[in-house]
Amino acid sequence: MADRTEASTPRAPPDAGTRLAVILAAGAGSRLTDASEGPPKPLVPVLGMPVLERAVRVCGEVGIDRVIVVVGHRDTEVRAWIDEFARRSGQRPEFVVAENWDLGNGASALTACSVVGDSPFLLMMCDHLASVSLLSRVLECNPPEGGICMAVDRDELPLFDWEDATKVRLHDGRVIGVGKTLVEWDAIDAGVFHCTPALFAALRESHVVAQHSLSTAIDILASANLVEAVDITGDFWFDVDTEAGRREAERLMRRSLGKVADDGYVAANLNRPLSTRLTARLAGTAVRPDHVTIAAFLLALAAAGLFATGTYGLAVLGALLLQGSSILDGVDGELARLKHLATPGGAWLDTIMDRYADVAVALAVTVAAAQATEGSDTLLWIGGVAAATGFILASYVTKEFELRHGRPYPNDFLAKLKKRDLRLFTISIGGVLGSPYLAAVGVGVVSHLCILGILSRGWKEGKQTPSRSRL
Amino acid sequence: MADRTEASTPRAPPDAGTRLAVILAAGAGSRLTDASEGPPKPLVPVLGMPVLERAVRVCGEVGIDRVIVVVGHRDTEVRAWIDEFARRSGQRPEFVVAENWDLGNGASALTACSVVGDSPFLLMMCDHLASVSLLSRVLECNPPEGGICMAVDRDELPLFDWEDATKVRLHDGRVIGVGKTLVEWDAIDAGVFHCTPALFAALRESHVVAQHSLSTAIDILASANLVEAVDITGDFWFDVDTEAGRREAERLMRRSLGKVADDGYVAANLNRPLSTRLTARLAGTAVRPDHVTIAAFLLALAAAGLFATGTYGLAVLGALLLQGSSILDGVDGELARLKHLATPGGAWLDTIMDRYADVAVALAVTVAAAQATEGSDTLLWIGGVAAATGFILASYVTKEFELRHGRPYPNDFLAKLKKRDLRLFTISIGGVLGSPYLAAVGVGVVSHLCILGILSRGWKEGKQTPSRSRL
Repeated sequence: MADRTEASTPRAPPDAGTRLAVILAAGAGSRLTDASEGPPKPLVPVLGMPVLERAVRVCGEVGIDRVIVVVGHRDTEVRAWIDEFARRSGQRPEFVVAENWDLGNGASALTACSVVGDSPFLLMMCDHLASVSLLSRVLECNPPEGGICMAVDRDELPLFDWEDATKVRLHDGRVIGVGKTLVEWDAIDAGVFHCTPALFAALRESHVVAQHSLSTAIDILASANLVEAVDITGDFWFDVDTEAGRREAERLMRRSLGKVADDGYVAANLNRPLSTRLTARLAGTAVRPDHVTIAAFLLALAAAGLFATGTYGLAVLGALLLQGSSILDGVDGELARLKHLATPGGAWLDTIMDRYADVAVALAVTVAAAQATEGSDTLLWIGGVAAATGFILASYVTKEFELRHGRPYPNDFLAKLKKRDLRLFTISIGGVLGSPYLAAVGVGVVSHLCILGILSRGWKEGKQTPSRSRL
Repeated sequence: MADRTEASTPRAPPDAGTRLAVILAAGAGSRLTDASEGPPKPLVPVLGMPVLERAVRVCGEVGIDRVIVVVGHRDTEVRAWIDEFARRSGQRPEFVVAENWDLGNGASALTACSVVGDSPFLLMMCDHLASVSLLSRVLECNPPEGGICMAVDRDELPLFDWEDATKVRLHDGRVIGVGKTLVEWDAIDAGVFHCTPALFAALRESHVVAQHSLSTAIDILASANLVEAVDITGDFWFDVDTEAGRREAERLMRRSLGKVADDGYVAANLNRPLSTRLTARLAGTAVRPDHVTIAAFLLALAAAGLFATGTYGLAVLGALLLQGSSILDGVDGELARLKHLATPGGAWLDTIMDRYADVAVALAVTVAAAQATEGSDTLLWIGGVAAATGFILASYVTKEFELRHGRPYPNDFLAKLKKRDLRLFTISIGGVLGSPYLAAVGVGVVSHLCILGILSRGWKEGKQTPSRSRL
């Protein structure tokens, strides 16, 4: 649940002005794919999705509504894929064919000139995986008149293939030199640009001197001090150039999937390492995030059913299923992010189902405990009600905080102590130790104490700020 | 609870530019107060709060941080009140003394010239009650160069004293004539202006011809086509000129307090008529909204305690207390709006306490039902858990909807059917009829069905919209 919260927060497109992207997908990529066997480079999958599809989808996510793919090498296959993608996705990327793509990526980029017109546009390489936040940062940079913005990374980490990297020399926020062989350099070209059509003029200029790489054109603009650097250090991107690079990209993406800012203790240390592996496995299949949400719900219900029997052996099985459900609860969000399928509807379904699953578990362990007791069950059931309501209110209280205070409740100790990952883990451990009821009531009581703490914090922070009255 | 939701939604100040207000409080107001007895006009209370305090507070609510009060008639008393208000409120209104206030309100307005400087400012009459939304609309209007914006009302309703009203002639969005004796007119002057210092020049011009009313100066600006009309028709305002007008203002304010857009059936038709009367009574006392929130919570806990006894007579008393608590649950929000004391902290406290009160009631009626039963209580307690969790989730589901979808869930049939006013009313009726448990479980089951309906709606509406992923 936790990791879908952030993914679904609606955001305005970062720049309402630029709604057009050009994706270069014309090169042979001979270092990555065999010229005859295997898919053409744009269709090489990374965690189950062709690199080109990732590029098109990430453009959609930053609010770009028109994507032009420049195709060249093995263009028939890439065009067939574009058709197929348009049918299943609802996005409609266009394409232009670069007849002379083999001259260099500058020649391919120049082909887009005819369809771009006068608008500013985003320019990406199809083999550069880039995150939404990276693209957003680049779009927020307004290109200088007659120039471009260029994403540069000052970090040494995300790069796999140093030799092949395009280096960048910076001065005063502008790029002053670009090239693979620069001796002194400050950052690496991340392969994402926010351009004015001035780029095409520079490309033509470089073609005159028989230079056909994009770098040369950018170097021409850089010499005229027309390339603004956008520092995207810290944002995820990766240049998939070789098979080893592709595997490294998959590893990094899987790792980045597991880093969720508002994860609790169990989620971060136990669940994520398992859920990200499972997500990576599911990436290439037809399984959608909502399938996983429903599977996690059904698993929790099954666990509740096993707990309700009151039989130790079955309760242990229930405990395992419950912890499995907790792990799956991370997979839906990860899969949604990985496959660019996050929707408010999916996160909504997930959250409400989690609440019902929790209530079912509290109910089941209390029923089992009540069946095992002689005489009055009143106190025992009061414990059950405390658990069930504590589970729901633990989630309620931080949602309410966000609505009242206009910002999320911080992921502090109180927040982590009442989170679902720890709750389900504790009940599972209780199940294995033979007392899931006591574990659930204990978690319920701790949840109520956390809620009191959060209530007090929200009250202190909120009592000074005046609200608007309507009278 | 319901009516505090809207009050606490944070809003940005409508115009970050204008942070200064001038409030005219210098006139004698002889039609309203006796010259010798009773408070001076600015201190005449409307629903327990002096008209001047209402004016100062409403300015604070629209983000104005500097308020200048022009005093004149009985200025010593008004200045003493300003000192006292500053001590208790944290707001620090300034004042200027208009020596020649008795010439007319134009003379008083001119006094502010020395302290206003070159900034645009809001100009109000202290005896014109005006709502936050009215002031916001006026502030959103940028005055024409060398002119002013003027709030005008095309409606005939809110006006009590036709003879004394300043009429306005409009043409093409501009005011072309102002006066009490206009024969043909299009709207009424609502007494709120967004001014440039050009107003002072017009005031000086009118003084030269021995005219000292604000209307004359505005008429001068209107002749030069420099008065932009801001149509505030539908927003609450009232000119308190006579004792009868004051009583009518109190009646209208009380009525407007009771009109809350997201009220449920019982709140709108049964609770509000009672709660607004109670709020009006409490307006002049030291009782603060949070006191009422806590009283409502304690009343619900007392009701739960009486229900738990399982004795019919005590349960009937509990039912009465519970309905009383439900009515009080409207009073805190009304009082907060009426006294301009709404804070996110207050609304936050109210919401969380409501959830705990509901759980206490569900628990109490189930305990009583269980005590009265021979043999196993399991099914009975499952009903109790369904009630308690249904009560909380009914509130949870619409909060979650707002967080996921970025807009409030509409106040439709499903929303009203699961609202707290109907819930507490049904349980109270159940208590009087001798079966609060059945009523609570019935309400719980209906709540769960409503939640399912809302879940399905949220799923349908949310599954198409893509969210941003973070990878």
